[in-house]
Amino acid sequence: MDAARAIPARPVGSIDGLAHLTASDMAGVDVLILDRMQSPVSVIPALADHIIEAGGKRLRPLLTVAAARLAGAKDAAALKLAAAVEFIHTATLLHDDVVDASNLRRGKVAAHLIWGAPSSVLVGDFLFARAFELMVETGSMRAMEILARASRVIAEGEVLQLSRARDINLSRQTYLDIISAKTAELFAAAAEAGAVAARASSQRCAALRSYGLNLGLAFQLTDDALDYGGSTEALGKNAGDDFREGKATLPLLLAIKRTGPSHRDFWDRVIGRREQAEPDFKRARELIIGSGALEETLQSAATYADLAKAALDEFPDNAHRQGLEALADFAVSRRA
Amino acid sequence: MDAARAIPARPVGSIDGLAHLTASDMAGVDVLILDRMQSPVSVIPALADHIIEAGGKRLRPLLTVAAARLAGAKDAAALKLAAAVEFIHTATLLHDDVVDASNLRRGKVAAHLIWGAPSSVLVGDFLFARAFELMVETGSMRAMEILARASRVIAEGEVLQLSRARDINLSRQTYLDIISAKTAELFAAAAEAGAVAARASSQRCAALRSYGLNLGLAFQLTDDALDYGGSTEALGKNAGDDFREGKATLPLLLAIKRTGPSHRDFWDRVIGRREQAEPDFKRARELIIGSGALEETLQSAATYADLAKAALDEFPDNAHRQGLEALADFAVSRRA
Repeated sequence: MDAARAIPARPVGSIDGLAHLTASDMAGVDVLILDRMQSPVSVIPALADHIIEAGGKRLRPLLTVAAARLAGAKDAAALKLAAAVEFIHTATLLHDDVVDASNLRRGKVAAHLIWGAPSSVLVGDFLFARAFELMVETGSMRAMEILARASRVIAEGEVLQLSRARDINLSRQTYLDIISAKTAELFAAAAEAGAVAARASSQRCAALRSYGLNLGLAFQLTDDALDYGGSTEALGKNAGDDFREGKATLPLLLAIKRTGPSHRDFWDRVIGRREQAEPDFKRARELIIGSGALEETLQSAATYADLAKAALDEFPDNAHRQGLEALADFAVSRRA
Repeated sequence: MDAARAIPARPVGSIDGLAHLTASDMAGVDVLILDRMQSPVSVIPALADHIIEAGGKRLRPLLTVAAARLAGAKDAAALKLAAAVEFIHTATLLHDDVVDASNLRRGKVAAHLIWGAPSSVLVGDFLFARAFELMVETGSMRAMEILARASRVIAEGEVLQLSRARDINLSRQTYLDIISAKTAELFAAAAEAGAVAARASSQRCAALRSYGLNLGLAFQLTDDALDYGGSTEALGKNAGDDFREGKATLPLLLAIKRTGPSHRDFWDRVIGRREQAEPDFKRARELIIGSGALEETLQSAATYADLAKAALDEFPDNAHRQGLEALADFAVSRRA
C-alpha cells in the first residue's frame, strides 16, 4: 500500500508476547466465557457460540488480564472481569450488526442473518446482563462502576455515530468523540478494571486507563484506514463497509476537505445521499490515498500508539509492560 | 364481557391507595428518571422521553418503593433502585417493540417508527447501562445481583417466547416459564430489591419477592386475557396484537385444546402458519370466550393474585400492606 510506505518506519509490534505471558489466564477466561454463555434456552448458546467462537483477538479481555498482572495481581480476580468485558463487547457487536445491517462479522456470516435480528438483539441483552452477573461475583463495586459507565458511553457513541451518519461536514473533533465513546472507552475500562482488580494505586489505575484509551483510538483509526486500504480477508469484515454505510470516518473527512470544491458533488452523492454505483468505492479509495488522507489517518493512529506506550512509564520495565508496548505497535502496524 | 361475569366476585382493587402512600417517593423517582435519561447526544433524551413520559403506570418502581417502606425503610435508598427498575423495564420495552415490530406502545406510536429500530436498540442499551450506574450509586451489591439476574432472565424469557412463537402445541408449563421469565421476574426483583434497600430479613425479602412474582404472573395472565377481551384504548396497545403476532398465550392454548380436532385446521392456519384474514380475530375471540378459555385464564390470574396477597402475611396489617393487597386485586380486576 503506497500510503503506508510514506510513513516513518515504526516497530511492527506483535500480540504474541502478551498472548504468551497471559496464556494460562486467557485459558481461564475462555472457560468462564463458555460456562456463562450457557442457558436452557438453546438459541442463546448457539448464537453466542457463533459470534464468540468466531474468536476475534480477545483483545479487550487480554487487556484486563495483562493490566492486572502488570499492576501486580497475584490472584485470578481479574479473570471474571475479563470475561465480563468480552461479553459487553460481544453484546455491542450483535447490536451493531443489527443497526448497520452488516452481513459479515469476524469473517463469518453475521448472526442476525442466521437467527434473525430479534434474536441478535435479545442475545445481546442476555450477554450484557451476564456481564453484570459476573462483575457482581467479583464483589468490586469500583469495577462495576467503570464497566457500567463504559457500557453507557458506548451506547452514546453509537447513537451519536448513527445520528451523524452521511454527514460530510462532520468535524474531526466530533469524529474523535464518536470513536472515543464507541471504541476507546471499552479499551480504557478493560485496562482500568484490571488495575482495580489488582488493587493498584489510583495513579496506576489512571495510567492503565490512559493506555487503554489511547490504544483504542489507535486501533479504531487504523481500522478506519484499513477500510479503504485493506482486504476483506484481513479485516474479517468487508473492506469498503464504512464507505457503503456512509460512515464519516477520518480518512474520508480529510479527503473531502483536501479534494476541494471540484469533488464536492461526488462526495455529496456517494456519502451525503448514499447513491453509490460500482466504481465509486474505487474512486473514493484513490482520492483518499492520493490526497494523503490515508497517510495522515495512519500517522494520527501512530501518535495515539505512542501516547499509549508513554502512559506505561508509571510501571517498571518488565515483560508485561513490553508486551503492552508491542501491542500498541501492533495496533497500528496492521497493514492489510 | 361475558367471561368476566362467570367469575366469582372479587374485590375490585385499586392502585390509588398505594399511589397516595408513595406519592412523595415516586415524585423523587420521577426526578431521578428525568435526570438520568439525559445525555449530550440529543436523540437519547428525546426518544427516552417519548416512551417514559408516555407513562405507563410506573408499576415496577412503585413496587420497589412500597416494598421498601413496608419493610421499614426510613431513608430514600430505594429510590435509585426504583429508577433503575424503570430503566430496565423501559429498555426491554424498546427492544421488544423492535423484536415484535409493534406499532403502538403505551397508547403512543412506538419509538422505532419515529426514530428507527437502530435508535430504539441503542437507546435501550443506554437505559440498561444507566440502570446499572444507578445501582452502583446505592452501593448495594445484593440489589445489583438481584437486578442483574432479573435482566438476564428477562432476555432468556424473550428468546424462549420468540423461539416458541406460533407453536400451537406449547404446554401450559412452558407458557408459564415464559411469562415468569419475561414479566414476573422483574416484578419479583423490583419488590425484593426494595426489601434489600430496607435491610429487611432474608425471610421478608423472600416474602416480597414471592409477592412480586405472583403479582407479575397475575398481571401478565390478565393482559393475555385482555388481548382477546379488551379494547385498544384501555390496553395502550392494539387488542389482538398477540393473535396477529401468533403468540401462544394461555387463552389461545386452552381454546385450541378445548375446541378439539374440528378446529385444528383453523388454529394451524391462523397461528401455526400465521395466515390471517380480517374475520379471523373475531372468530378466534369467539372460540376463546365460548370455550371458557378466557374465563379459566382470568381465574388462574386471580389465583396468583391471592398467592401474592398471602405472601404479605409476613408483615403487620398496615397501610402499605393494604395498598399492596389492593394492587394485587387491581391487577386482575382490569376488565376492558
